[in-house]
Amino acid sequence: MQINVCLTPGEYVIEQYRDWNAVVIDVFRATSSMAAAFANKCATVIPVETVEEALQKKQTQPDALLAGERNALKVNGFDLGNSPPEFTADAVRDKTIIMSTTNGTVALVKAAESAAVYTASFVNAAAVCRTLREHSRDTVLICAGRKGEFALEDALCAGLLADRLADLAALSDSAQFARSAYREVSPQLLQRVSESRHARYLSEIGLGKDVAWCLQYDIFDVVPCFSKGKVRVVPG
Amino acid sequence: MQINVCLTPGEYVIEQYRDWNAVVIDVFRATSSMAAAFANKCATVIPVETVEEALQKKQTQPDALLAGERNALKVNGFDLGNSPPEFTADAVRDKTIIMSTTNGTVALVKAAESAAVYTASFVNAAAVCRTLREHSRDTVLICAGRKGEFALEDALCAGLLADRLADLAALSDSAQFARSAYREVSPQLLQRVSESRHARYLSEIGLGKDVAWCLQYDIFDVVPCFSKGKVRVVPG
Repeated sequence: MQINVCLTPGEYVIEQYRDWNAVVIDVFRATSSMAAAFANKCATVIPVETVEEALQKKQTQPDALLAGERNALKVNGFDLGNSPPEFTADAVRDKTIIMSTTNGTVALVKAAESAAVYTASFVNAAAVCRTLREHSRDTVLICAGRKGEFALEDALCAGLLADRLADLAALSDSAQFARSAYREVSPQLLQRVSESRHARYLSEIGLGKDVAWCLQYDIFDVVPCFSKGKVRVVPG
Repeated sequence: MQINVCLTPGEYVIEQYRDWNAVVIDVFRATSSMAAAFANKCATVIPVETVEEALQKKQTQPDALLAGERNALKVNGFDLGNSPPEFTADAVRDKTIIMSTTNGTVALVKAAESAAVYTASFVNAAAVCRTLREHSRDTVLICAGRKGEFALEDALCAGLLADRLADLAALSDSAQFARSAYREVSPQLLQRVSESRHARYLSEIGLGKDVAWCLQYDIFDVVPCFSKGKVRVVPG
């Protein structure tokens, strides 16, 4: 088993990773929100790239919730934004959620053709690592980044996963690099990530509470898995 | 002054960095060889992207040396390969060197339109940092990588530069990340970089001695600067 990290989403090309596990990481905040949604027993998440697609899907599934953001703010008319604490049991239990975010859902849709596609964040990292150990296969960790660019929080989460799987897997150059950075940063994770561009932006628009929330380790024992257009939880 | 790192060469787009300093890093081995060449008083290096271009340039400059590699091996008929120890004073003093390598010279040509373009490696890192302090301007560190992909040694060298300039400059997410990884790796730099893909390849084809050579810190007080198609040394 080998682990590679795409530090920006543009590095992922399906031709290279068709037979691999793909793990999409968007700490701020799509894959943190998905973990919260599944922990609170939502039925399925349908990731779509654009607001227009979300509204179209809603036509055929009127009971579904619309969730997502643009510039980190809830899309006008949607039921939920992209703050993980919004995805409560009251809001999402047994629901289908049509979700469109700037980075995470776009990266997820792009990774759809890899052999198995999971979503990870700090909040469900241990569960994802357990699944990757059980279904051992070459694995690419895809950092969703921010508008195509590098995002510190996603790369550090990739480093956490690489660190936890290093006993099992051969780490590529980028996986070694991410692991090293994670190990250096981890004693002060919240403080250091709070200086990142995305965390500062979230704080500026009044969503600073999401930063600390998304950096909690292993609070949810769920592994979202994307297949045939839908994210469902892997049976535990 | 801010510092950003392009961890793979594809992240560099001229539109974003036209008014910036650009520093091209190709530790294995183009920018290490250039530092050696200038330390040994070569006159100028002309970087070109293809072997064909190199041969064409040679037609008009018959006294120039041809240097470069494909798959790390000296190009057939060239005077020099891409091993830094080849660039001795006997070989290069007062010479023009037409150089074509797989990663470094390609990244250098692509960066040509930034405001000032330097080349760096571990062997001349201190000199480059001194120049960047003197000509303070937003600076992008471009990791040449390997065939477009991430290369551990280049990203760690970017981390070294970011670490040394952190008192002066605001570090972007990728610069902070590279700095953290460098700090974690640096106590065992040779051992850890020897596990990288490029280092293992060089060792396999009998060029393992270049790995340790290229990881020497600050042995050359030269700053190659690329302008109008030619690399020359910045007057010290």
